Amino acid sequence: MNMNEIIIKKRNGGKLTEEEIRYFVAEYTEGNIPDYQASALLMAIYFSKMDEEETFVLTDAMRTSGDVVDLSAISGIKVDKHSTGGVGDKVTLVVGPLAAACGVPIAKMSGRGLGFTGGTVDKLESIPGFKTTLEPEEFHKQVEDIGIALIGQSGHIAPADKKLYALRDVTGTVENLSLISSSIMSKKLAAGSDAIILDVKCGKGAFMESQDRAEELAGMMCKIGNAAGKRTVAVITDMNQPLGRTVGNSLEVFEAYDTLKGQGPSDITELSLHIAGIMIYLGGKAETPEEGAKKAREAMDSGAGLAKFRELISAQGGKLDMFDYHDATNSIPVADLQEEIVADRDGYVSLIDAQLIGLCSQHTGAGRKVKEDSIDPFAGVLLFKKVGDKVEKGEKLATFYSSDKDKLASAIEEAGGRDSGAEGKAFVISQEKPEIPALIKTTIGL
Amino acid sequence: MNMNEIIIKKRNGGKLTEEEIRYFVAEYTEGNIPDYQASALLMAIYFSKMDEEETFVLTDAMRTSGDVVDLSAISGIKVDKHSTGGVGDKVTLVVGPLAAACGVPIAKMSGRGLGFTGGTVDKLESIPGFKTTLEPEEFHKQVEDIGIALIGQSGHIAPADKKLYALRDVTGTVENLSLISSSIMSKKLAAGSDAIILDVKCGKGAFMESQDRAEELAGMMCKIGNAAGKRTVAVITDMNQPLGRTVGNSLEVFEAYDTLKGQGPSDITELSLHIAGIMIYLGGKAETPEEGAKKAREAMDSGAGLAKFRELISAQGGKLDMFDYHDATNSIPVADLQEEIVADRDGYVSLIDAQLIGLCSQHTGAGRKVKEDSIDPFAGVLLFKKVGDKVEKGEKLATFYSSDKDKLASAIEEAGGRDSGAEGKAFVISQEKPEIPALIKTTIGL
Repeated sequence: MNMNEIIIKKRNGGKLTEEEIRYFVAEYTEGNIPDYQASALLMAIYFSKMDEEETFVLTDAMRTSGDVVDLSAISGIKVDKHSTGGVGDKVTLVVGPLAAACGVPIAKMSGRGLGFTGGTVDKLESIPGFKTTLEPEEFHKQVEDIGIALIGQSGHIAPADKKLYALRDVTGTVENLSLISSSIMSKKLAAGSDAIILDVKCGKGAFMESQDRAEELAGMMCKIGNAAGKRTVAVITDMNQPLGRTVGNSLEVFEAYDTLKGQGPSDITELSLHIAGIMIYLGGKAETPEEGAKKAREAMDSGAGLAKFRELISAQGGKLDMFDYHDATNSIPVADLQEEIVADRDGYVSLIDAQLIGLCSQHTGAGRKVKEDSIDPFAGVLLFKKVGDKVEKGEKLATFYSSDKDKLASAIEEAGGRDSGAEGKAFVISQEKPEIPALIKTTIGL
Repeated sequence: MNMNEIIIKKRNGGKLTEEEIRYFVAEYTEGNIPDYQASALLMAIYFSKMDEEETFVLTDAMRTSGDVVDLSAISGIKVDKHSTGGVGDKVTLVVGPLAAACGVPIAKMSGRGLGFTGGTVDKLESIPGFKTTLEPEEFHKQVEDIGIALIGQSGHIAPADKKLYALRDVTGTVENLSLISSSIMSKKLAAGSDAIILDVKCGKGAFMESQDRAEELAGMMCKIGNAAGKRTVAVITDMNQPLGRTVGNSLEVFEAYDTLKGQGPSDITELSLHIAGIMIYLGGKAETPEEGAKKAREAMDSGAGLAKFRELISAQGGKLDMFDYHDATNSIPVADLQEEIVADRDGYVSLIDAQLIGLCSQHTGAGRKVKEDSIDPFAGVLLFKKVGDKVEKGEKLATFYSSDKDKLASAIEEAGGRDSGAEGKAFVISQEKPEIPALIKTTIGL
């Protein structure tokens, strides 16, 4: 095998053989193929594309590059859930307990956030005492005992993807269907669940801006998953404004908690019930996704989902005091310093730039700029208005929280200042009442 | 400036600004941009291409990345000559002395061979005592004194190109018009001559197989040269068989010597007179290229060219004994071991695979496989037949020379064995008399 010849073959539009793809992934992961040849091949793939067969092999080569988790000791159909990344997306914290409460075992490993906001693991770590690292036996036992465990992803899941993703990120080779889908699916397939539900975001705050591209990505990931013998379903959902009203770790945990109480924002509630319904269906605990959604609603209304969330927190060492205090007083813990964003005119909120709000949240300290940054669990953004809401000049649109004066100032600057409403700022206010985009666009693979 | 954004801009078909191109070349040469970003950009350029303006800037950025030679101290119009690389191409050794004999100052720096065969410098070093390194003052003085000096290219001419070329070579990013033409022209423009003649090869043994592609490359290089204020002319010539009858360093020096005596093979003689004619014209010593060619012919017939070559050898410390012995006996110095290639059938030579003969010559020890290899000055290939020649079964086609038994055996193996004639071997023999391709296809830029 000669790496230069493999690059030239792909560059010339050729189809790589299984042997060539596995050679590349294995030797690159081992450090025997230099980054400069890998990035040239990635750019050639960007232009010449890979077909389905090549994409399946690439996914499998990355899947088997490290640990492949074996969850067969846990009885039942384990269902995993993945989001391509949204601002304010705390749906995992809601659907996990709901599905578990309905009898679907949730044995989930989540990543840390690398982009704007914290990942699920970062969010859970904002709960004092919560442990996101469990030994495999503890992890299995907890799922057997209470039906759910949420831990951090081991460093040894799909190391090939980790190395390739880091390279793609700095060589303009992120945006390719085969590379994106194989990256996500190699990790999901190595994580050991039996079925997978994918939440593929589209819109201004997402990887894929257009719904067509999001559907294409979702379709490819479902094909990869199903070809690997795991039932895979995808929902395409809107990310033209942040999901819910909070962005930030502790803020999002409390919003998820309220959603499980039946008191969450309508968008989070709607999406959670839809996804949990599919999970309950895929887990064999409902005949149809609709029946699944009904069961999820019942688990929300009865408090069974909330109870499961509290059980999960306790099982992994988290303290419930904060939540008890919240139940009694309706207050939430936030960072010491705060600053408000207000409307600079009368009108209707026509846009909340999800990407910009994500960046603001990162600036407050809720997300990492570089891998080594520590996270401020109580920093973030609380939204008072959503797209379509009427506002008056001077009315409060959002509050930014931070423990650091400079970070807070830089977050406000990122938002375009305290007064918002003009094009290019975090909030855009228009005279006409805007159309509100549908949250759930379509479901693929059912 | 953000390198990832520059890569993405080019990937998306954008036009890079002068500032972006100069940033890339300067920072990459300094080691501040990693190879993996450079190779991704090169592959993006391969696909998205560069326009003329970008190519001019890229050339200039590489030209000024190191030393820019100043030959203004030498009087007259200095003319440089470059070949895109052919097997058996010893034309520089003929045209340099011919043009110098006609009054055109030749102050030429040549490269070492990195491909199949030695470069002009390697060829000259096969002459005992010949020095290819001169201090700038010595170099200038020699050109003033005898009208010609041929030395090795300083390590500090266009270091950006050197680094980029090494990267392109292993990342499948060689074959792009802008990258090839800027690579060649950055060095030529830094080398200080006033006018440039380019010999662009096409055919099986060349960079560009088709004449169309060769003309495109030649056209771009002429544009770059003229835009930089140096009169640039290109000839497109055939490389479907080796040039002349020798491949190897000392072998080629003696063939050039014989050509200057008027006793060279017809192809080398024809091409040398054509190119020398253009050089004499560009150097202002003839009214037209045709008049230049006539003067070159006269310099050949009168022995003035040969005398100039001997003067050059002496001036740079080379011993003339070998040539005097050759003049007296007609014998040439060759390596100790030899092996013959013979015809395996009756017929006509219809192809001599120039690329394969080049590789064979490399195997004998006449070329380098890696930069560190030393060269065997007396190894190489001597051809007894050219395309169109009639042969009988068992007749000698070529002799391979080497000082190393194993190298000789590997060269014969590379050729496809001692018996030649079938498709895929070094010589192909057909029943029909083949058409002989024209040697000089066209001239561009006159």
